[in-house]
Amino acid sequence: MTAWENYLDANQDRYLKELLEFLSIPSVSSLKEHKEDVQRAAEWVAARLQSAGIENARVLPTGGHPVVYGDWMHAPARPTVLIYGHFDTQPVDPLEHWSRPPFEPAVKNDRVYARGASDDKGNMLAPILAVEALLSGEGRLPVNLKCFFEGQEEIGSPQLPDFISANRQLLACDLIYSADGGQWDEDQPALMIGLRGLCNLQIDVRAARSDTHSGTFGGTIMNPIHALVRLIHTMHTPEGRIAVEGFYDAVRSLTETEQARIAAIPYDEADYKSDLGVDELFGEPGYSTYERAWTRPTLEVNGIWGGFQGEGVKTVLPSTAHAKVSCRLVPDQKPGRIVELLRTHIEKHTPPGVKVTMVPNPSVADPFLIPYDHPGNLAAVNVHRKIFGKEPYYARMGGSIPVCGIFLKELGAYTVNFAFGLNDENIHGPDEFFRLKSFSRAQLAYGMLLKQLEKVKLDGSY
Amino acid sequence: MTAWENYLDANQDRYLKELLEFLSIPSVSSLKEHKEDVQRAAEWVAARLQSAGIENARVLPTGGHPVVYGDWMHAPARPTVLIYGHFDTQPVDPLEHWSRPPFEPAVKNDRVYARGASDDKGNMLAPILAVEALLSGEGRLPVNLKCFFEGQEEIGSPQLPDFISANRQLLACDLIYSADGGQWDEDQPALMIGLRGLCNLQIDVRAARSDTHSGTFGGTIMNPIHALVRLIHTMHTPEGRIAVEGFYDAVRSLTETEQARIAAIPYDEADYKSDLGVDELFGEPGYSTYERAWTRPTLEVNGIWGGFQGEGVKTVLPSTAHAKVSCRLVPDQKPGRIVELLRTHIEKHTPPGVKVTMVPNPSVADPFLIPYDHPGNLAAVNVHRKIFGKEPYYARMGGSIPVCGIFLKELGAYTVNFAFGLNDENIHGPDEFFRLKSFSRAQLAYGMLLKQLEKVKLDGSY
Repeated sequence: MTAWENYLDANQDRYLKELLEFLSIPSVSSLKEHKEDVQRAAEWVAARLQSAGIENARVLPTGGHPVVYGDWMHAPARPTVLIYGHFDTQPVDPLEHWSRPPFEPAVKNDRVYARGASDDKGNMLAPILAVEALLSGEGRLPVNLKCFFEGQEEIGSPQLPDFISANRQLLACDLIYSADGGQWDEDQPALMIGLRGLCNLQIDVRAARSDTHSGTFGGTIMNPIHALVRLIHTMHTPEGRIAVEGFYDAVRSLTETEQARIAAIPYDEADYKSDLGVDELFGEPGYSTYERAWTRPTLEVNGIWGGFQGEGVKTVLPSTAHAKVSCRLVPDQKPGRIVELLRTHIEKHTPPGVKVTMVPNPSVADPFLIPYDHPGNLAAVNVHRKIFGKEPYYARMGGSIPVCGIFLKELGAYTVNFAFGLNDENIHGPDEFFRLKSFSRAQLAYGMLLKQLEKVKLDGSY
Repeated sequence: MTAWENYLDANQDRYLKELLEFLSIPSVSSLKEHKEDVQRAAEWVAARLQSAGIENARVLPTGGHPVVYGDWMHAPARPTVLIYGHFDTQPVDPLEHWSRPPFEPAVKNDRVYARGASDDKGNMLAPILAVEALLSGEGRLPVNLKCFFEGQEEIGSPQLPDFISANRQLLACDLIYSADGGQWDEDQPALMIGLRGLCNLQIDVRAARSDTHSGTFGGTIMNPIHALVRLIHTMHTPEGRIAVEGFYDAVRSLTETEQARIAAIPYDEADYKSDLGVDELFGEPGYSTYERAWTRPTLEVNGIWGGFQGEGVKTVLPSTAHAKVSCRLVPDQKPGRIVELLRTHIEKHTPPGVKVTMVPNPSVADPFLIPYDHPGNLAAVNVHRKIFGKEPYYARMGGSIPVCGIFLKELGAYTVNFAFGLNDENIHGPDEFFRLKSFSRAQLAYGMLLKQLEKVKLDGSY
């Protein structure tokens, strides 16, 4: 083992303690009451960059949740590599489904349980630790490095586009690696060459001025829940296609090569179903499960509420009903265009007797696709071969990492997904966890990747 | 003025204070945390019966929320009249829509604001106060009296049928008056000759084992909110009829006389809409608004929930979604039969990829219809003439008072609605109130009614 690998080995106990400390900060970006916690997480990250030997480490304001920046720029004539991740987390509700408090991290069966363990604190901490090991073991890094971590990924990075646009000089780089994402499974690497885009909106339906008695008025006015149900029902065909006019217009069809690359990935429907605990899959006809999850757009109601939700009975005719809707988008759909199509659809299908308001969320993500033979991918594949002893699958991700599209637009650099989360780790759900094995593997992989990247020429060739 | 009327007059300040005290007990029957408060309200009522001079006043257990009984049986060869009301209340959510705390009653513009002010504490206290005045002013009552107040009306009186059945002797009577209900408006009396029945159920939809990431899995499995929307959507036609097979089979058509009696009641659609704050009414075609509200059944979703309801965005694919559904029923629909039709409908229309459970609430109410020329009604009409100087409308109520059907079945006695709530008093909604004028009028009316009832013969003639 080289010196930096020895250093990693020798410091695993301390690194785990640090991860637990990081995970105990409830940096939920979507909830106002956790604003200070997101700031606290940023400060924790900046301090950790500094103690790793990364220079100019600092928390920078964005107008919303902050970002953290740090660099090490002492490799002249070598490429500049930017590593990205995020230190904010999803909310935790339904809290009652968690086996233990989500921000009191615990290690059990070689897994760390906590909100944010896999998405993304465990993954984003790993490259920092790898850099510390490299600097400690070799006294230098093989490339110039910029670290850029954000605190608003889970709410769609609302202030990030403006921040990146205003700080192009600071963030200028040749290649970007994202420590937010995952591998195929414990033994199988994957290169994530595509991400779905995203737009979100809330639908608010109002009927009577206030809640009324379902006996006195039931049958004479539109129930806003019924109206919302009618409206949502118009958005899909019974078969599972999206029925919003024009929704699929910009969707690029898969090439035969793309189809073949996806079909090459083993898929076991029985496993897929049993992992989720469902008896039956459902979705747009004419596509395989992976094609649906990665290359086809969705329109999902993420939340719905109205009227009485308590124990027992309350025979109320509510005055309002609400839904949160998100669409996952694929090339070449544009979030802004989809929002407008939804607005038109809702106006056209508003049921009688109610007022409907649609509020789009300002945070959107463009769909993203990186050429599978991009030099950044080739370097990653070399690490995959060493760590896993295998060629990666060329997969995509159904999720969205808005910053990939933003980096491409503002910095002209593609983002390579290089992270070690796995699909079963309950990210966004109760009992999120991260494997200790993935945590140490990620540190090693990032060390090896930075060594690999020494070979990338400044013109991008490899 | 007679002595008892003077007594009423002289005690209005004290009576109001007592009402405020009664209203400050948060006797919400649907919520476990208020169980003790319902008991406390029962004890308050029993004590108030006793201080009014009513004998044998006591709280009786039912297995659920208690009832209160008291009597005065010293009018031999006179009819026995039972007065009914309830001391429990609806829940208060959404609390944020209340102008002041719902259980800190306040008098403003000659109205008492509090949860339960109109439904039913203000209304049910009035006859007790009238009895106190009669006993004080005349030393006796004109009829034998039984008071019977319950603490579970707002949850559908689950233990009441068994209690009444087991206590037929105790409750035996010739006539029943319900102090739960209302008048037409401040100047216009109404005889409520019909009530809708009620059944309630909860629908629970389950898809995946736990909440998942809408990016990772969105598009491959059924979203339980979508499934619930599909299911609820099957329950109505676009025009507003209920689309559950067999739902209308037992519905009795209105006779021409019944139609005419309803048509005789003035109706101003502009007022109806502006009272509710809606631009447009909606409901089953082919019926007038009152016919829809009183004589046609409904199927209303009283509450719906699933997924993320917080501020901002959470791109979750929820594991469950839920709805609370209630049906208002009309003669000759039977709640049990309707529940079975709904079960069949739900089984038939369960969307693919989810499991649906339907949980009927044990509390149901039969629809109720009293002959408009029933002796109990004729006595009430005489009081209406004296108090309002007008003939009453022969109206119905869209709401449900389960006990009316139970009394008819178990005691063989019809219930006459004799109460003074008004439609605009926000019962079941935020800022419920009761007019002070209605409160004092109700006391006077009950005094006059008991005097009238002296004339009813034991064979029921009048």
